[in-house]
Amino acid sequence: MTTSPESEHPIKAYGYAARNTSGILSLSPSPEGILSSFIVMATGEKDVRFRVLYCGICHSDLHFVKNDWRFTSYPATPGHEIVGEVTEAGSKVEKFKIGDKVGVGCLVGSCRSCQSCASDYEQYCLKPVFTYGVPNFNGTQTYGGYSDHMVSDEHFVLRWPENLPLDSGAPLLCAGITTYSSLRYFGLDKPGTKVGVVGLGGLRHVAVKMAKAFGAEVTVFSTTSAKEQDAIDGLKADHFINSKDQHQMEAARGTLDGIIDTVSGDHPIAPLLNALTPHGKLVLVGAPESPLEVAAFYLIMGRKTIAGSNIGGIKETQEMLNFAADHAQWRTQKFFHGDGKFQGVRTGFATELSTKIFFSRGCARPPCLSLKSAIVSADIEIIPIDYVNTAMARLLKSDVRYRFVIDVGNSIKAE
Amino acid sequence: MTTSPESEHPIKAYGYAARNTSGILSLSPSPEGILSSFIVMATGEKDVRFRVLYCGICHSDLHFVKNDWRFTSYPATPGHEIVGEVTEAGSKVEKFKIGDKVGVGCLVGSCRSCQSCASDYEQYCLKPVFTYGVPNFNGTQTYGGYSDHMVSDEHFVLRWPENLPLDSGAPLLCAGITTYSSLRYFGLDKPGTKVGVVGLGGLRHVAVKMAKAFGAEVTVFSTTSAKEQDAIDGLKADHFINSKDQHQMEAARGTLDGIIDTVSGDHPIAPLLNALTPHGKLVLVGAPESPLEVAAFYLIMGRKTIAGSNIGGIKETQEMLNFAADHAQWRTQKFFHGDGKFQGVRTGFATELSTKIFFSRGCARPPCLSLKSAIVSADIEIIPIDYVNTAMARLLKSDVRYRFVIDVGNSIKAE
Repeated sequence: MTTSPESEHPIKAYGYAARNTSGILSLSPSPEGILSSFIVMATGEKDVRFRVLYCGICHSDLHFVKNDWRFTSYPATPGHEIVGEVTEAGSKVEKFKIGDKVGVGCLVGSCRSCQSCASDYEQYCLKPVFTYGVPNFNGTQTYGGYSDHMVSDEHFVLRWPENLPLDSGAPLLCAGITTYSSLRYFGLDKPGTKVGVVGLGGLRHVAVKMAKAFGAEVTVFSTTSAKEQDAIDGLKADHFINSKDQHQMEAARGTLDGIIDTVSGDHPIAPLLNALTPHGKLVLVGAPESPLEVAAFYLIMGRKTIAGSNIGGIKETQEMLNFAADHAQWRTQKFFHGDGKFQGVRTGFATELSTKIFFSRGCARPPCLSLKSAIVSADIEIIPIDYVNTAMARLLKSDVRYRFVIDVGNSIKAE
Repeated sequence: MTTSPESEHPIKAYGYAARNTSGILSLSPSPEGILSSFIVMATGEKDVRFRVLYCGICHSDLHFVKNDWRFTSYPATPGHEIVGEVTEAGSKVEKFKIGDKVGVGCLVGSCRSCQSCASDYEQYCLKPVFTYGVPNFNGTQTYGGYSDHMVSDEHFVLRWPENLPLDSGAPLLCAGITTYSSLRYFGLDKPGTKVGVVGLGGLRHVAVKMAKAFGAEVTVFSTTSAKEQDAIDGLKADHFINSKDQHQMEAARGTLDGIIDTVSGDHPIAPLLNALTPHGKLVLVGAPESPLEVAAFYLIMGRKTIAGSNIGGIKETQEMLNFAADHAQWRTQKFFHGDGKFQGVRTGFATELSTKIFFSRGCARPPCLSLKSAIVSADIEIIPIDYVNTAMARLLKSDVRYRFVIDVGNSIKAE
């Protein structure tokens, strides 16, 4: 008689799952009384088990729970911007020990033998195991980080840098690596490079911060003029262009070395190509439903590139986290009112590449739930997990600046 | 009273010109009794004057004489694959002396001060002076190589390598540099790289040869199965795929590092993107009239690139000519029949990167009008200039293997 991994290792994992295309998430148990297993419930010899502390809400999660991509099987537990703490390490685990802070992004498996895997590009392996919603190699389904704990092969687990916030750092595991890898691969990571970022939302605001951290001169394109203040004052972008304003677009002609286009709605490409210098690169990280219309002439006459980019490999994701941490040194300073009266202590991030120091809102030490303006981490709104359906509804209306992060550790309680 | 350069320097230049959108070329003089001036008729202090020996017929020439691109002013003299011999050198000319063999490609001027020019990418200067059909900086019109002599600033004149044939080498100045620069810039110039070439015509057959010279494994895509023999036996491509055959296309999925797409007719792009490996590059050097339809998803999931590329800079064009010459060493061998009877001497090109030696058809020494199979030069049909209208008509029907080259030196006679 054969047994399933679940019956051999009936360890309960609790998580929020959607049960149907309504996408409504709940903690309701499956018919067997447990949600289901995540990856493998047994901690294999190369696996680590970790308690989930924080999980960012990515727009993909929303598509997934509503079955927008037509591959969701229910129950469906999303979440691929996961920060946790190791609770168990397999006998052959080398990188981690119990108590280590770790991260898991969009991937928990790949074939480990193809050319992409051999080149540390696991994200382009043709047999990827995404963190949620797909079959794992052992036949179990993968479930994401809206849950109390997970198990993963240590290869796909990232070491969390000591000085990187656990909460606002979580979105780096998807939004951060997507923008970091795009900027690096396409040579847009040099100081002084002129980089455009199209739109200003969850992924996009991280793109602005990442490009700034590389020392780029950043131009934000948006169809909403009201976002100018957010872009310039909030995110320290250098320029803002209303992409509906033809005069502004014309003035930008031939000025940008690269553009990171995060917009997943249909939008015209030709004006963006016009804004590129010769040899400029338009990098798509959002996928509009309709095909893009591209006149070959625009590409040929300036040897311009349209390319796509999808997250990053595991090695590069670790490099990105380290980079983010290196550019986010904690500083504590005393502040005084104009009259010399002591105002209080404020703590925030500073970056070697920025002359400014940005401060959190009144919090004294990391990790800091109300942290808002770290240079290379996300601007977040922390929520308990029972707020997740409201958060999803708000996300659909772009009513968040800029990323929801679920405080999983304090809001999912195991039995 | 001001004078025009023509009236100051009334040197006659003779060439074939179209007079209207019929595109019919003739030697008829302009109303003033001379065709017109080419570039500047006076040889400026940095200019060289040269007698045109050979000029390739590019498909662009056909578009130009018929005003397909809506910018032709008549009389219109095309030709931008020009090989000649210096007859006069300005007082400050450093690179050339009388009698030197030289080449001129698609460019005879650029601003010389922009970022592109400073980076030796004159082809992407926003103020380029193309070899024919546009105003030069001094207000004169540029006229191409279907003419007996020309004048150009020495910066835009190439030194012709001694062992490169004057006739079959001429098309390298457009078709050659276009494919060389594409392969180099997009990293497809490494031995063992898997390169696709879409179509098999004038530009495309040079793409195959250039990629082979770099040591690539070359796959030719064509909608015409009859071209398989030409591709494999004639051009030594490694593989042939009928792009209308879905099974063949499916078998090619994920196999190519890059594709040079030379097709200027509308054709589907998605199957070509499918044939690329992750990080693969589709490089367009032909410009279809209708916009390409590109699903962003295809680009994102394998970090694939669609880019354009247009000829090459002057420095790179010289590098390409030298490369072509280095890979086209003349060899002379004696051949014997099976019975040991002396058959004759045959001369041909060999390449370090090829294990085969290809032979010309019965000609004994370079330059060789009937030369057919040089590794890095074009397969050509030599014509006298009074055949040019017939050649244009045949070109329109793709009835040439693979490039017409006009023997200008022996068929235009000055008064």
